[in-house]
Amino acid sequence: MLVVMQHGATQAQIDRVARVIEEMGYQARPMPGEQRTAVGLVGNDGRVDASRIEALEGVAEVIHVSKPYKQVSREWQPQNTVVTIAPGVSFGGHDVAIIAGPCSVESEHQIVTAARAVRAAGASALRGGAFKPRSSPYAFQGLGKKGLEMLAVAKRETGLPIVTEALDEEGAHLVAEIADCIQIGARNMQNYSLLRAVGRIGKPVLLKRGMAATITDLLMSAEYILAEGNSQVILCERGIRSFDTTTRNLFDLTAIPVVQKLSHLPMIADPSHGTGLRDKVTPMARAAIAAGADGVIVEVHPTPDRALSDGGQSLYPEQFARLVTEIRAIASAIGRSVLPTPGTAPVTVG
Amino acid sequence: MLVVMQHGATQAQIDRVARVIEEMGYQARPMPGEQRTAVGLVGNDGRVDASRIEALEGVAEVIHVSKPYKQVSREWQPQNTVVTIAPGVSFGGHDVAIIAGPCSVESEHQIVTAARAVRAAGASALRGGAFKPRSSPYAFQGLGKKGLEMLAVAKRETGLPIVTEALDEEGAHLVAEIADCIQIGARNMQNYSLLRAVGRIGKPVLLKRGMAATITDLLMSAEYILAEGNSQVILCERGIRSFDTTTRNLFDLTAIPVVQKLSHLPMIADPSHGTGLRDKVTPMARAAIAAGADGVIVEVHPTPDRALSDGGQSLYPEQFARLVTEIRAIASAIGRSVLPTPGTAPVTVG
Amino acid sequence: MLVVMQHGATQAQIDRVARVIEEMGYQARPMPGEQRTAVGLVGNDGRVDASRIEALEGVAEVIHVSKPYKQVSREWQPQNTVVTIAPGVSFGGHDVAIIAGPCSVESEHQIVTAARAVRAAGASALRGGAFKPRSSPYAFQGLGKKGLEMLAVAKRETGLPIVTEALDEEGAHLVAEIADCIQIGARNMQNYSLLRAVGRIGKPVLLKRGMAATITDLLMSAEYILAEGNSQVILCERGIRSFDTTTRNLFDLTAIPVVQKLSHLPMIADPSHGTGLRDKVTPMARAAIAAGADGVIVEVHPTPDRALSDGGQSLYPEQFARLVTEIRAIASAIGRSVLPTPGTAPVTVG
Amino acid sequence: MLVVMQHGATQAQIDRVARVIEEMGYQARPMPGEQRTAVGLVGNDGRVDASRIEALEGVAEVIHVSKPYKQVSREWQPQNTVVTIAPGVSFGGHDVAIIAGPCSVESEHQIVTAARAVRAAGASALRGGAFKPRSSPYAFQGLGKKGLEMLAVAKRETGLPIVTEALDEEGAHLVAEIADCIQIGARNMQNYSLLRAVGRIGKPVLLKRGMAATITDLLMSAEYILAEGNSQVILCERGIRSFDTTTRNLFDLTAIPVVQKLSHLPMIADPSHGTGLRDKVTPMARAAIAAGADGVIVEVHPTPDRALSDGGQSLYPEQFARLVTEIRAIASAIGRSVLPTPGTAPVTVG
Repeated sequence: MLVVMQHGATQAQIDRVARVIEEMGYQARPMPGEQRTAVGLVGNDGRVDASRIEALEGVAEVIHVSKPYKQVSREWQPQNTVVTIAPGVSFGGHDVAIIAGPCSVESEHQIVTAARAVRAAGASALRGGAFKPRSSPYAFQGLGKKGLEMLAVAKRETGLPIVTEALDEEGAHLVAEIADCIQIGARNMQNYSLLRAVGRIGKPVLLKRGMAATITDLLMSAEYILAEGNSQVILCERGIRSFDTTTRNLFDLTAIPVVQKLSHLPMIADPSHGTGLRDKVTPMARAAIAAGADGVIVEVHPTPDRALSDGGQSLYPEQFARLVTEIRAIASAIGRSVLPTPGTAPVTVG
Repeated sequence: MLVVMQHGATQAQIDRVARVIEEMGYQARPMPGEQRTAVGLVGNDGRVDASRIEALEGVAEVIHVSKPYKQVSREWQPQNTVVTIAPGVSFGGHDVAIIAGPCSVESEHQIVTAARAVRAAGASALRGGAFKPRSSPYAFQGLGKKGLEMLAVAKRETGLPIVTEALDEEGAHLVAEIADCIQIGARNMQNYSLLRAVGRIGKPVLLKRGMAATITDLLMSAEYILAEGNSQVILCERGIRSFDTTTRNLFDLTAIPVVQKLSHLPMIADPSHGTGLRDKVTPMARAAIAAGADGVIVEVHPTPDRALSDGGQSLYPEQFARLVTEIRAIASAIGRSVLPTPGTAPVTVG
Repeated sequence: MLVVMQHGATQAQIDRVARVIEEMGYQARPMPGEQRTAVGLVGNDGRVDASRIEALEGVAEVIHVSKPYKQVSREWQPQNTVVTIAPGVSFGGHDVAIIAGPCSVESEHQIVTAARAVRAAGASALRGGAFKPRSSPYAFQGLGKKGLEMLAVAKRETGLPIVTEALDEEGAHLVAEIADCIQIGARNMQNYSLLRAVGRIGKPVLLKRGMAATITDLLMSAEYILAEGNSQVILCERGIRSFDTTTRNLFDLTAIPVVQKLSHLPMIADPSHGTGLRDKVTPMARAAIAAGADGVIVEVHPTPDRALSDGGQSLYPEQFARLVTEIRAIASAIGRSVLPTPGTAPVTVG
Repeated sequence: MLVVMQHGATQAQIDRVARVIEEMGYQARPMPGEQRTAVGLVGNDGRVDASRIEALEGVAEVIHVSKPYKQVSREWQPQNTVVTIAPGVSFGGHDVAIIAGPCSVESEHQIVTAARAVRAAGASALRGGAFKPRSSPYAFQGLGKKGLEMLAVAKRETGLPIVTEALDEEGAHLVAEIADCIQIGARNMQNYSLLRAVGRIGKPVLLKRGMAATITDLLMSAEYILAEGNSQVILCERGIRSFDTTTRNLFDLTAIPVVQKLSHLPMIADPSHGTGLRDKVTPMARAAIAAGADGVIVEVHPTPDRALSDGGQSLYPEQFARLVTEIRAIASAIGRSVLPTPGTAPVTVG
């Protein structure tokens, strides 16, 4: 940590900063400059409360040199964490994984039909919401526990592992009973009670980036889960807020290589929420893989124009099948391949 | 709702849109234009799922004419809702209210000292966090239940009503036992489970705008609380994310008159989080009142340079006392006054 | 400048950084830390090219401790610059100034009527565009040179000094012939050729903040004008881009005290463009003055519903008159007053 | 255009809106709804001034159904515009083009070395700035006219066409004498005088998206060039401002398919400015091509750690050579290829 003093700070003010740093148990290293003095804090263990120092007289600014996160960082663990949500379904290794399915579980027929279609096309896992965070209290909120039971049927029928969202601690326990990976949505990325709860449950977690979350914020939220002893965390870029509302969100694909350099956790992308527009899902899923994403999560509905939520950004099954073919070609172009569908032999591109 | 067809959409596509609208139980009103046809949907009750229509062939765009919120709107209730959190402490009436206190409750001595100081200076209510949402799992997380008990002591000692944050449903019930107003922080603004919980508890709620929340998002989150039968909601602007990181957040004061026109709920402002800089709190608190805010919530700490959190943006007690004087002058300039401290006679500016 | 090395950087990499810093003519001061080493660059004169150092192996990050601007900073000149555009019409002193008038000059009758109305209400200067930067090439682009002549008539009739925009160097010379202050609009804030041109012309300049400009960017653009020897620069906050499109721009009033601390230049605010909504202009003009702005610039049109541009955000003359009264009350509440209309005795608020 | 009336607007107010629309020469089509009435404006030719109607009493909102741009739209011209800047060097056709070279021209040796290196690696055109828009007036501003002459030498030596930036009308004429494509940078995207000037000059233009420009803004700026009779415009995504400053800009790759649907103009991407980080240039260039970009423009410097500007984001020549190989593989995966270097036979990927 570097404490930059104001131009014209007195020696007494500089000494006071050094004294407070030492009272806090660290070493102070003053560094006089041409225009102003800075005081380095040596020994930062990530628990330094900068605001105490910011409040001292003569301090212009406190600059953080160390990163605030620990266990999620590559400095803590240099090699990739590979998160395995079911036998043969891993994120963060050589292969890229494809999670697909409808926004919401609407009926047993719908989810089983969707599961069969995405499995046939090459998906590695099934998504589908039973608990839905909707911006309107009057909109369809998901089938809840019944929806989870329908997901269990779809899993039995197709062998696809299940990724589904939990909105609160009680729901997380219900989800953990049937799902293979608990999703924490963008709106709950800083719901720390929920993050701690899924940390304790210990199942793999898919953590989506919040709409106003910096990359540091995303990693700090993952840190909450790891701090509870659960390192099975998959991160997901799904678009952030920007001033251009042409697309539903601004899909920040640069976040993929940025996170992969800073952290050992796998990072996937959600082009359905990232763009909000069906005809942009395919090019942006390709782009995500080309940028190095460890997988994608895509909305696919058997009949999008009858969907109870997000129909406008869901792919038709035949569009999804073409998308998988394109993803295979892109993965192959960068020396990776697509994870084989669970229970099948690997597919290779000639 | 207006469904804009693509330039060159066929009559069959237009007819299909009209048919789907009618199947959904509304009236369709085609409106041919010079460049393209639009189809109006008449009878929108706020439950129309636009994505079903967006997915139809030939549709360029769906434009929402009705607002998605209902009970929070001025069209639902033209006169202001006045939220009374304790006898004589109301938000949304003629007077502006001042909530003040430290970021976190740190000890009984600290919170009682702070309470006395802000009461003496003219505050109407005491803030102080017992449950703290911190971006790092290793940072001070608040004293929890013990902190609530200390707030109860401070209330007994000073008569100031208490505003404090809850992070989850369990915590909301604990907070409700001692606090007069339950705060939902920016990070939980779209934690719908928590919004529903505080809606059912029925105590006044202070709902802070999320960092990426549009004004519509804020009103929709308030709608969740009203939909549970609790209309005692105070909204709060506290800064949103922007590309300029000179200030911690971008304090959007225009949101105040915008919300006041769209909704009957009171709207206050938090210049401490809105700016993150102690020396900007006073001018921006004045600006908030000048813009028409129904109150402000301000961080004040007896000894900011020893604060366990947010010390750098907390006012010293004597700075707060001057701030109250300035707020009185501004309120008076626009024909309002500052709420008298509970249990005292009104203060007037000559 | 502080060069932060990667965790695990070798001694050879650290030495190389130090050597390059010394080759560039500065001193290097290595500062080993618990987690990583940093190397301070001492003697930064504002011309250091950080990217050369960023490119060296083992460098994690370069942190700028010095500000990139010089002549605009308070460290360069502690006391306020007072910009006088005409006898008695100054920005940056004790009084706040009000510039008002229509978006565009439309006819001699219109601009003279507007000038008389705003003068009667208490304005200190007249605004009105002759050269208009319009997002569409097919929209009304202003009357050009003829518009300037009409402004000259309005000035003769009312005694109000003129503030009007220039879009290019040629236009700047034309504007300089009749106007008292040359406005550089938000879209041209980083048109460095134009900034240099108005720097050389030497007339007072009103420099508006760009839609994506940080406060540092704004100050750097002003630095271009001062670097040509012209320190008569008034800065202006007029709203920046944000994710919420409820208002046309996000009016960043905190920029006012932030700029006033960093720079000696006067800073005013434009609530008309800052909000884009007529009924928000009055509360936000009040808020700007309460935040400490040295003035406001407001769109007023004799008949807004017939305006050729920006009619929806222009005040009616009687609304403007009420606004001036309210600004007087707010200015008085913070110990300032409104500049008297040129040629009249000062107005005081009882 | 749709004029939405306030809930409770009177019949007289609705009639007034209809009358004004008809006075303006269009047809009014009232459309009463459940909650409020809307009035459609039929016959919009792109010149309607909405603000005149917004200002009428009882109007809640004006919604634009037609797009404000014309000649740049796919509705105006369905087939792609192919912009040819030199024989065999086209943008917008089947092949993707690669523009490469240093940020600034620094010396004849440097630019010729760079040109040879990027040509050898497979570039189709040479970039290099002679006029540099720098945020600091004290930073290196480019070699100006001399730099242009050095570019002419590099062109003679390698046969690569030249893309270089102009900052003002005078510079645009100088650039046009030697360059094959005039670049308008992000900071000048709304410098309408300059846009008109390059429209009149008639040479191909590379128009970069501004840092706060929506896609509509970008297309409107291109419209200024087309309105002068020059349709040889290549658009370029180069990153926009966002709240996360981890990367220099937020690279909005979804803009590529969005623009390609709305407009017939070619769209390329600049991953060097889009990310600002050398090690992110390669993955994001690949992602741009996977998203469907018609080309990329990349900074390459013979010795980045001695560059006078932007060294930290410039590729080493050998990194660029690998990038071209990867781009070829990605282009091939989506059925495109990379433009052959001018004067050579096409390269195919097996």
